Amino acid sequence: MSKGAVSLSSEMANAIRALSMDAVQQAKSGHPGMPMGMAEIGLALWHRHLRHNPANPGWPNRDRFVLSNGHGSMLIYSLLHLTGYDVTAQDLRQFRTLHSKTPGHPERGYTPGVETTTGPLGQGLANAVGMAVAEKALAARFNRPGHAIVDHQTYVFVGDGCLMEGISHEVCSLAGTLGLGKLIAFYDDNGISIDGKVEGWFTDDTPKRFEAYGWHVIPAVDGHDVDAVDRAIAAAKRDTERPTLICCRTTIGMGAPTKAGGHDCHGNPLGDDEIAATRAALNWPHSPFEVPDAVAQAWDARSKGAGNEAAWTAARARWAAEYPDLAAEFGRRMAGGLPDGFDDSADALIADAAQKAESIASRKASQNAIAAFSRIMPELTGGSADLAGSNMTTWDAMEPMTATAGGTYIYYGVREFGMAGIMNGMLAHGGVRPFGGTYVMFSEYARNAMRMAALMKLGAIYVLSHDSVALGQDGPTHQPVEQLATLRMVPNMDVWRPCDAVETAVAWRVALEHDATPTVLAVSRQGLDAQTRGPDAMAQVRRGGYVLHREGSALAAVIIATGSEVSLAIEAARRLGAEGIGIRVVSMPSTFQFDRQSAAYKADVLPDGVPRLSVEAGSTDYWRKYVGLKGTCIGVDTFGESAAPDVLFEHFGLTADAVTNAVRAQVAA
Amino acid sequence: MSKGAVSLSSEMANAIRALSMDAVQQAKSGHPGMPMGMAEIGLALWHRHLRHNPANPGWPNRDRFVLSNGHGSMLIYSLLHLTGYDVTAQDLRQFRTLHSKTPGHPERGYTPGVETTTGPLGQGLANAVGMAVAEKALAARFNRPGHAIVDHQTYVFVGDGCLMEGISHEVCSLAGTLGLGKLIAFYDDNGISIDGKVEGWFTDDTPKRFEAYGWHVIPAVDGHDVDAVDRAIAAAKRDTERPTLICCRTTIGMGAPTKAGGHDCHGNPLGDDEIAATRAALNWPHSPFEVPDAVAQAWDARSKGAGNEAAWTAARARWAAEYPDLAAEFGRRMAGGLPDGFDDSADALIADAAQKAESIASRKASQNAIAAFSRIMPELTGGSADLAGSNMTTWDAMEPMTATAGGTYIYYGVREFGMAGIMNGMLAHGGVRPFGGTYVMFSEYARNAMRMAALMKLGAIYVLSHDSVALGQDGPTHQPVEQLATLRMVPNMDVWRPCDAVETAVAWRVALEHDATPTVLAVSRQGLDAQTRGPDAMAQVRRGGYVLHREGSALAAVIIATGSEVSLAIEAARRLGAEGIGIRVVSMPSTFQFDRQSAAYKADVLPDGVPRLSVEAGSTDYWRKYVGLKGTCIGVDTFGESAAPDVLFEHFGLTADAVTNAVRAQVAA
Repeated sequence: MSKGAVSLSSEMANAIRALSMDAVQQAKSGHPGMPMGMAEIGLALWHRHLRHNPANPGWPNRDRFVLSNGHGSMLIYSLLHLTGYDVTAQDLRQFRTLHSKTPGHPERGYTPGVETTTGPLGQGLANAVGMAVAEKALAARFNRPGHAIVDHQTYVFVGDGCLMEGISHEVCSLAGTLGLGKLIAFYDDNGISIDGKVEGWFTDDTPKRFEAYGWHVIPAVDGHDVDAVDRAIAAAKRDTERPTLICCRTTIGMGAPTKAGGHDCHGNPLGDDEIAATRAALNWPHSPFEVPDAVAQAWDARSKGAGNEAAWTAARARWAAEYPDLAAEFGRRMAGGLPDGFDDSADALIADAAQKAESIASRKASQNAIAAFSRIMPELTGGSADLAGSNMTTWDAMEPMTATAGGTYIYYGVREFGMAGIMNGMLAHGGVRPFGGTYVMFSEYARNAMRMAALMKLGAIYVLSHDSVALGQDGPTHQPVEQLATLRMVPNMDVWRPCDAVETAVAWRVALEHDATPTVLAVSRQGLDAQTRGPDAMAQVRRGGYVLHREGSALAAVIIATGSEVSLAIEAARRLGAEGIGIRVVSMPSTFQFDRQSAAYKADVLPDGVPRLSVEAGSTDYWRKYVGLKGTCIGVDTFGESAAPDVLFEHFGLTADAVTNAVRAQVAA
Repeated sequence: MSKGAVSLSSEMANAIRALSMDAVQQAKSGHPGMPMGMAEIGLALWHRHLRHNPANPGWPNRDRFVLSNGHGSMLIYSLLHLTGYDVTAQDLRQFRTLHSKTPGHPERGYTPGVETTTGPLGQGLANAVGMAVAEKALAARFNRPGHAIVDHQTYVFVGDGCLMEGISHEVCSLAGTLGLGKLIAFYDDNGISIDGKVEGWFTDDTPKRFEAYGWHVIPAVDGHDVDAVDRAIAAAKRDTERPTLICCRTTIGMGAPTKAGGHDCHGNPLGDDEIAATRAALNWPHSPFEVPDAVAQAWDARSKGAGNEAAWTAARARWAAEYPDLAAEFGRRMAGGLPDGFDDSADALIADAAQKAESIASRKASQNAIAAFSRIMPELTGGSADLAGSNMTTWDAMEPMTATAGGTYIYYGVREFGMAGIMNGMLAHGGVRPFGGTYVMFSEYARNAMRMAALMKLGAIYVLSHDSVALGQDGPTHQPVEQLATLRMVPNMDVWRPCDAVETAVAWRVALEHDATPTVLAVSRQGLDAQTRGPDAMAQVRRGGYVLHREGSALAAVIIATGSEVSLAIEAARRLGAEGIGIRVVSMPSTFQFDRQSAAYKADVLPDGVPRLSVEAGSTDYWRKYVGLKGTCIGVDTFGESAAPDVLFEHFGLTADAVTNAVRAQVAA
């Protein structure tokens, strides 16, 4: 980069550099190195290839863009600002301040044009894979000869950190298997991570690694040569059968005279002196956040963007005229609403479960719900991390996605974290409603991606089976103890642990109704007794906590129970009822829902001053929230053991006898 | 395999098959397919190469063996039984029953010869990498010319599931970078996982992938040809600069006439008919758990094993004569005890922190502790997942491990899960004491490996910095909310959140004293006020909860606080004290320790019937355990935001004013 005359193209890239370094400096925190290093790549992609409409970030057929190395958030904020999204210079000045459109990392819902929240490394890449999966599924479902209504690319920027993370392996391996030809990843190969030069801890031959996944790899592209990056993107788009990795060699902090190429510019402001020197070196005399008109006009994508969408809208109208039903379904699915008839289907499913009163495992009841809802919700897209039969996430009419076919079922392989990250991407894309299964225990592998669903307000559904030590012989590595409680503690996560087929059906209904809350369905391996409910109780299941068994005499104590332990509580209440001791059983499948009920309802279910007990085959600490300091918590606070389920329930004191004795002691206390 | 005469070698492999299928059948649950498929590989390794001593599973220089595909536990139980460990036929009959030596998955501590608990896929491979790291570090420290006192292989069996998991990428990439030449992995390439043929979800070119990591790869070995596997192992051992992957093509359930090669034999008993047919096909007429004498004798490794150890013991004696100090240190480190002078060092560190009374960040106080303890504990082996400077896990005298050097510091790269899994392997190996850093939030990536440390009773130490929303501008993806509470819920996990340098020093001391409990040290980014303590309080810090500020008049309420919020509680107590309202502040850096104190001590700190409040910048639900239904919990139950730390504390109501007002309201209630 010379100090002399600068081409318009260079000026456009330098606009990103200047905005990024100035915003980070103003915020006194942030990451200038990456946006400065990826400026030309951003230019090549956003100016020459990206099909989008800045005036409508919700255009269904836009290309998707994900900044997986999300710490470089000023790159995307700069691009959004420059191309004409509703991100003003004033917004950039508020970088990293409370409730601004420009938080420290890109946050879905805060900024028009930000597709997904990134920062936790590797997950943006997983989200991008999910977006490409959604695109593929929708294209297969909706496109017709001569009508490519769903037809867009998904682009993702990744850094060394993303590629070191294990989730990058999971999702890129699967992307190769599924032949996601419209996925194009850019590897910002700058050789630097927070601890310094990566050669001390990251020596992968990354092109070779991705070839091993079946990707199209374009190695050794000069990431500061806009034309070279442009050619690589064109080549990537031509390969429609394989995802492409474009490996771009870049210099972190490019343009900063003394700090470029070093890790100091990764996560710290450049400082006033270096910024002044960078301005001089780049021949960028403009004041902070000022972009000269010629550069601004060159970047402005609003007119082209409106044209992009208008052409698609016209094409969609032609398609809709020919395939009105398909178009209606597409519209509903992209809008995210439930189908007509949803309530009827849900009511029928629940009534059927109540009428049949089968003592089946809740994983089986969950499968019944899947079968029922899939008939009216073609957007349901199932999957499991290699436990389809155990989680019971399959249904008769499902169609597995393969390299050559769309589908409604993803065989994720043994990739829990990848699955959850991909589901987030599918939801962020829209048009599909994913659910995915694993054991409750192995949700721990996926935990941060599930949290990201809650943070992003995505309605993911996790079918987590084998919900207690009652899974038996596989032992403590597989037996959840604290997992239910800890999942309940994730903000905006609704955890259901149903006690029978009726509660399972209600749980599925609520999960599907959630449009901004993910749901865990913790279901059992073993059969669960069908419970009896009057009309009141039937109506109250969805409140998350309700009186399942009402005391027959003066209320002496309340037992709060969930899942497989509800039947123990019922048995204890019956035995004590026979002795004239009035025991109420509150089934509490969802504390999330119960906590959101009115104070009056809660006080009615759990009257003040009455002794309380909790029974759940898991950590007891959580239940202090409901039973208080003086109540009794029956559960499991140690690791599990390998033995038959009934042996274990006996071993851990999860029996009707033990519950009965505990209630007796509590009442006497 | 013909039905005619069977060679002794085949008989030896078939002994594994028979024991495995019979044990699974007797237990009516388990995984016969893998042991039957890997029988010849087990034979080649355990009979021809493994240097071990069945009479002493603790021999320090034994080769380590890890069954990462732990569901095939009958393989290792068979091998231990056959080679002469204290695992009897009766133990095999008790497969998967309560408190047996043969639980469903291999469990460290339950079975002599089981090095690490496996089952959660991919983690055994990480543990093996950790064992090889420990061997490398110890060899560099203790070997001298002519004295190879630490010199053993680490072998690990992995299946498709392990290789699909992301953690396999993290640890194998790092193993390549570190040049772990004594690590030899066997890939059981049987093409089957639980959902069926893996070709639908796993199409990696695995040899190429591992070449990309810099491994020595031996592809396309016939896993049923003992000599071929033998030759591959010999070639692997000859390459001392790179880890080796031996890719073995096998047939799952080999020997079962109708079920071999299918996924049905992966996780289900074969059934009586198939077992009878297998006996016939293998020409194995013996009754269940019976091994004919010739086969048993051929397998018996006790005599050879005693010779292995005796030769090493003699070599060690020669070395000890020449290097007595080194030998003494080696002995102490392998035994796992603390060094002489530990208490003096710890006392001095704590006294120094109290005397200096610096208001430093607890991450800085943690670094001071590391510097102090590293001087007397050369086994301390630090590291961070690419956040060394942020976590402050470095010290002046540390020596990074590289491909060509041992060391006391591991640059793990951005690999949190891998780091925690590797630390588990280092601890299972012995001789090193690892600690590893990341942000509190990204412990979620590592969560299940941290749980495995707790399950295996390993004294891992996690330095988790940036312990609240006070990390500031990086925003909600980086700000812990529920993480502290959920980590506390892991059985046998000691979580410390110190409020100042003194508590940090005590926390480090307790962490190092733990020989069977992992510890989380949740430390702050921001500076924390130094608190004042009398001798009583100083002595009680290690109890995990103690009276830091005693009420000056009749006790009106108790505030329980941790970490950065302690100073808010102190300020509130002082203000109210000035008004004559007696407020006590209990600092509770470790609920784990506090819960283990006597009832009398706990009642003395938290008197019954006095209103209580909790203050912690995180989830409040957990604190109901201490404050009850009527208490007040001040904390954060939503996601964080991106803004400056002080703006956020104001935003979330974490101020002395807010705490003062809440106490006032609680006292008035």
